[in-house]
Amino acid sequence: LAELLVKYPNKFIGAVACLPLNDIDMALKETERAIGQLGLKGIQVFASVYGEQLDDPKFKPLYEKMSKYDLPIWIHPSSDDTLDEPVFGWPFSTTWAMKSLVSAGIFSDYPTIKIITHHCGSLAPYFEGRIRWLYPQGFKMDDPGRTRVEHFSKFYADTALYGTVSALMCGYDFFGADHLLFGTDSPSGPQYGLTGETIRSIEHMNIPDTDKEKIFNQNAVKLLKMAI
Amino acid sequence: LAELLVKYPNKFIGAVACLPLNDIDMALKETERAIGQLGLKGIQVFASVYGEQLDDPKFKPLYEKMSKYDLPIWIHPSSDDTLDEPVFGWPFSTTWAMKSLVSAGIFSDYPTIKIITHHCGSLAPYFEGRIRWLYPQGFKMDDPGRTRVEHFSKFYADTALYGTVSALMCGYDFFGADHLLFGTDSPSGPQYGLTGETIRSIEHMNIPDTDKEKIFNQNAVKLLKMAI
Repeated sequence: LAELLVKYPNKFIGAVACLPLNDIDMALKETERAIGQLGLKGIQVFASVYGEQLDDPKFKPLYEKMSKYDLPIWIHPSSDDTLDEPVFGWPFSTTWAMKSLVSAGIFSDYPTIKIITHHCGSLAPYFEGRIRWLYPQGFKMDDPGRTRVEHFSKFYADTALYGTVSALMCGYDFFGADHLLFGTDSPSGPQYGLTGETIRSIEHMNIPDTDKEKIFNQNAVKLLKMAI
Repeated sequence: LAELLVKYPNKFIGAVACLPLNDIDMALKETERAIGQLGLKGIQVFASVYGEQLDDPKFKPLYEKMSKYDLPIWIHPSSDDTLDEPVFGWPFSTTWAMKSLVSAGIFSDYPTIKIITHHCGSLAPYFEGRIRWLYPQGFKMDDPGRTRVEHFSKFYADTALYGTVSALMCGYDFFGADHLLFGTDSPSGPQYGLTGETIRSIEHMNIPDTDKEKIFNQNAVKLLKMAI
């Protein structure tokens, strides 16, 4: 990826590293190499690692490191658990990772950490009410005090919902204009992916043009510290 | 429940039967008793039955019977599987039941069947794009031809999202005004439930008043064959 950035500077403006999270020491070293030496713009992790959740304490040094770099962590769904089904199961794995990170207090420990969730925050926006009202009751929760809707909306989210305007609006209401980033999930979908549908759905959102500019451009420029 | 309807006719306008689905023969008999003798207005099933999915062929006589009565089946989340977590896991179980019924071809076999899903159709509206674009690709699907977004929107859905207007709008776009019914999930939530929040969220939807009247009233009158 780093080579492609050098070779095609007019096509690619950045890349992120996919980490070997089954070995946290190697993952930390690869993070330093990718960001410090190769100039990559962040890291990608999977929603779970061979069944281990992202709130496992051994991953904390990675969150601390990314907090110091002040560069984002992308969470991609995992398919290593019982919910290996693409339409609903994969987004669920992202949601589960979000829940594990929130209830472990990641936004208390690292208040400026930037975590970008796939598929527009997966289940969180649609079930905003359940998060808001059920978690504080402590119903089946280990630590009800930490799992609050205000923490879930600290995540960032991409627009990869394949063109559904009202779902995007729901995600926008949940995360806000500053936490929504253009993303397509390409090449998922028929033939060449759903990039066109995704662009059109953002254009059809009933929000100010200045917010669309944030989603298409400015939020990424800011998060990835790009000079344009 | 039938006794309460007789005793308090000004408080309760209808009730439905909860079925012993672990015994389909008993469940069919109880359906006949509840609807034929007691005058109840439909049945409620759980999203799975001790790990068995609702597309198990043994449940088909029940769908046929309810199709003939032309009265609704309510699906409530189940908590008998690995996803026994209230905020995200329970809605997921509803979604899984919807998927199993659609891919088994229930809306082809029983075109007029009425199935009401809890929590505003659970994951389906937010992931409309994934249903639309991924299932027809046949990716990890047994029968891609049958699992189409047009079938998912044949379900009915309640408004039990605990007050999130943009999520309701997403559900409205997916199911349409004729398939959305007032429902609260009471007494879930703090103290006396979230009925007030649910009513307010419907009132704040940016839709015609005639559609709100359908959601609050007319759709239920029609589905439950109530004379008012």
